[in-house]
Amino acid sequence: MATQVNPPRGMRDFLPAEKKRREHVLSVIRSVYEAHGFEEIETPVMEDSERLHAGLGGDNEKLAFGVMKRGLTADDLSSATESLDLVDLGLRFDLTVPLARFYASHRAELPTVFRSIQIASVWRAERPQKGRYRQFIQADIDIIGEPGALAEIELMTATGATLSALGLTGWTIRVNDRRLLFGMLEALGFDPADYDSALITIDKLDKIGQGGVVAELREKGLPGDALETFFRRPQTMEFLPFGERAIAKALPAGVDPVAIAELAAIGLAVDEGKGAPVVQFDPFLVRGMGYYTGTIFEIAHPSSTSALGGGGRYDGMIGRFLGTDVPAAGFSIGFERIVDLLELPDDTTTDAVALLYDADVEFPTLMALKAGLIAEGKRVRLEKAPRNVKPLLAQLAASGYGSVASVKADTTGTGDLAFRPLGS
Amino acid sequence: MATQVNPPRGMRDFLPAEKKRREHVLSVIRSVYEAHGFEEIETPVMEDSERLHAGLGGDNEKLAFGVMKRGLTADDLSSATESLDLVDLGLRFDLTVPLARFYASHRAELPTVFRSIQIASVWRAERPQKGRYRQFIQADIDIIGEPGALAEIELMTATGATLSALGLTGWTIRVNDRRLLFGMLEALGFDPADYDSALITIDKLDKIGQGGVVAELREKGLPGDALETFFRRPQTMEFLPFGERAIAKALPAGVDPVAIAELAAIGLAVDEGKGAPVVQFDPFLVRGMGYYTGTIFEIAHPSSTSALGGGGRYDGMIGRFLGTDVPAAGFSIGFERIVDLLELPDDTTTDAVALLYDADVEFPTLMALKAGLIAEGKRVRLEKAPRNVKPLLAQLAASGYGSVASVKADTTGTGDLAFRPLGS
Repeated sequence: MATQVNPPRGMRDFLPAEKKRREHVLSVIRSVYEAHGFEEIETPVMEDSERLHAGLGGDNEKLAFGVMKRGLTADDLSSATESLDLVDLGLRFDLTVPLARFYASHRAELPTVFRSIQIASVWRAERPQKGRYRQFIQADIDIIGEPGALAEIELMTATGATLSALGLTGWTIRVNDRRLLFGMLEALGFDPADYDSALITIDKLDKIGQGGVVAELREKGLPGDALETFFRRPQTMEFLPFGERAIAKALPAGVDPVAIAELAAIGLAVDEGKGAPVVQFDPFLVRGMGYYTGTIFEIAHPSSTSALGGGGRYDGMIGRFLGTDVPAAGFSIGFERIVDLLELPDDTTTDAVALLYDADVEFPTLMALKAGLIAEGKRVRLEKAPRNVKPLLAQLAASGYGSVASVKADTTGTGDLAFRPLGS
Repeated sequence: MATQVNPPRGMRDFLPAEKKRREHVLSVIRSVYEAHGFEEIETPVMEDSERLHAGLGGDNEKLAFGVMKRGLTADDLSSATESLDLVDLGLRFDLTVPLARFYASHRAELPTVFRSIQIASVWRAERPQKGRYRQFIQADIDIIGEPGALAEIELMTATGATLSALGLTGWTIRVNDRRLLFGMLEALGFDPADYDSALITIDKLDKIGQGGVVAELREKGLPGDALETFFRRPQTMEFLPFGERAIAKALPAGVDPVAIAELAAIGLAVDEGKGAPVVQFDPFLVRGMGYYTGTIFEIAHPSSTSALGGGGRYDGMIGRFLGTDVPAAGFSIGFERIVDLLELPDDTTTDAVALLYDADVEFPTLMALKAGLIAEGKRVRLEKAPRNVKPLLAQLAASGYGSVASVKADTTGTGDLAFRPLGS
């Protein structure tokens, strides 16, 4: 009996062409990150619930799929009498919490400064909507154990090199520093107790605009007028070209010059490594996660209203599982958004060939022909010759096969094969 | 505060060296299967519980981790009042059930004969024990839509080519056919109603030996004596070299000659494709899964008492989700066992270099040096020069770095770098 056969809500199947596209993009990301000195690790898809809900994941913690600690039988499902204390595992909702747990577990076996790559799926029990999936891939790099700005510089440089290697153009990296955000709020007369609340509102700037932000701050009883005046200054929204002077000019007077100098040094070194200006200062960049402690950054691209990736420094977090502070910074690429943006070259290769065999060809002959072609470096598909060959040829061309040859009962070796090209 | 930081019970973290080894093995498997005309697909890690527990997974269904349909919050965990009807998803315990569901969903978009690759993790809530994991990788190929023996031939040929490409020697493929098993039981006087029960016992031959099998059959009231007499015939346990005559000789008289001829044709074609005899007939090969309908096969290796992989024809199964019968056969590699068996070459590459920089080197200089080396095709890691350099050099050598150069304040370009090799 036929049953409902779609994948679970908000999750996707990938057919061969799309799977190949995705694997190609992943292999480019992986190889560029490795060239930049990062090393790939892997953790299980599940973590103990207790660790997933330790307060490190922000709002995402609520979206963790719970997993039962033992197998679930059909009987369990029909009786449904047992309680949720059987659920003591959960699927990871990001790659940062597992990394913190991994580092705490394996610190002694890792380099003093550890540069990790994690390319893996994460799961969030979100309300499904366009462009939001319940299973999706994240590609993260992190540097643990480096307190200095070199961490941020290497993260941004490696991420930028990856975007370029993928053929993506027009992107920039917008940067800010939590210390500059706090300095701006202080200079505008906000009370330190209100900083978090004010930043939640300012984080909505892209969505609700300057007027919306000012109005919401006023509603909250915060000094929206001061921000309104500040917004009216010229050039603040223009993401100035980089440099210490430009950053200072985009901020109210009196913001910490040391933090400004540090951020400027990071941006200039990234531009130098890239050989082109890609870093821009954005005084209103907030990034949602409360665990950031210093530099924060996002990838902006004209074709996308939301960021293609982001990250920052989070010095307090790794220590939560370790019992001692360890400096850390990371950069996460929004793989799903990027793979949607990319136009990849046509996949047809002359190396992929199909053999159309007649029903009376002996199997050993067929397998010897196939083995011979594979030994020559070909990708080989066998197809029984149909009465009407046209649909099959169209399908082979669409699958990237470059040429086709017929195998008859009297074909004895690959020298007898007459390949004809397939148009695509 | 430091907390317990191990991965969940029965699941593993992979550090960089091991992750690299695994990815290397996976990429070899993937590329050989692609050369043989198979195409990779991907399905979500979860399926609806109803489909996972549809009776296609045998005993493994009981080992499916249940997943709650919505996010699980810390409050849920502490109250634990809700019932299991929230659990309507499960993690896949194999790749065959998801493949059947995938094929039913996408049949119209797939070739008439579809050759799939699936390389992915599966989860089983097993009691943890040595060599058994609760998350592990399976590598499956399947051919759907091919009723003839070419399916089995291509599956065994591609799997054999993969094992050889991985450098594994000494393996053989043991084959049998469910029809020959039934024929043997019939000839020995078993009642058709007892075939399943008898095969469960015969499947234990490797563990409990001939005496154990005979005794258990007698306990069940089945004709153990007849099997005992049959066991005493010469050569039956010697996995004879292949061929129609040899197969017939290893079976009781009167077993279906058509099924014998078909199995012989498969084995001979595989040997032909391989260019060497690798297929052996095993009259007592059963394979546990009840869904097999014809040929069954396993990879045997002298270093392992259990099979390194296995598969067979399962014509009735895909139809369960589709409502119409579709012929199918598959071969699954036991990736975890194979990766443990392989000895891979030393990973040190002269392409991987480390730069030991002094604290007074400017960041832009450092990043320009790194960019220059990467452009030359190097993999580059930056390390701050420590007071005692020996432990760092040892660690770099162990991580596969081939050479190291110092960067001083007066280093201006890659031409100033003096690389010295790292012993490993």
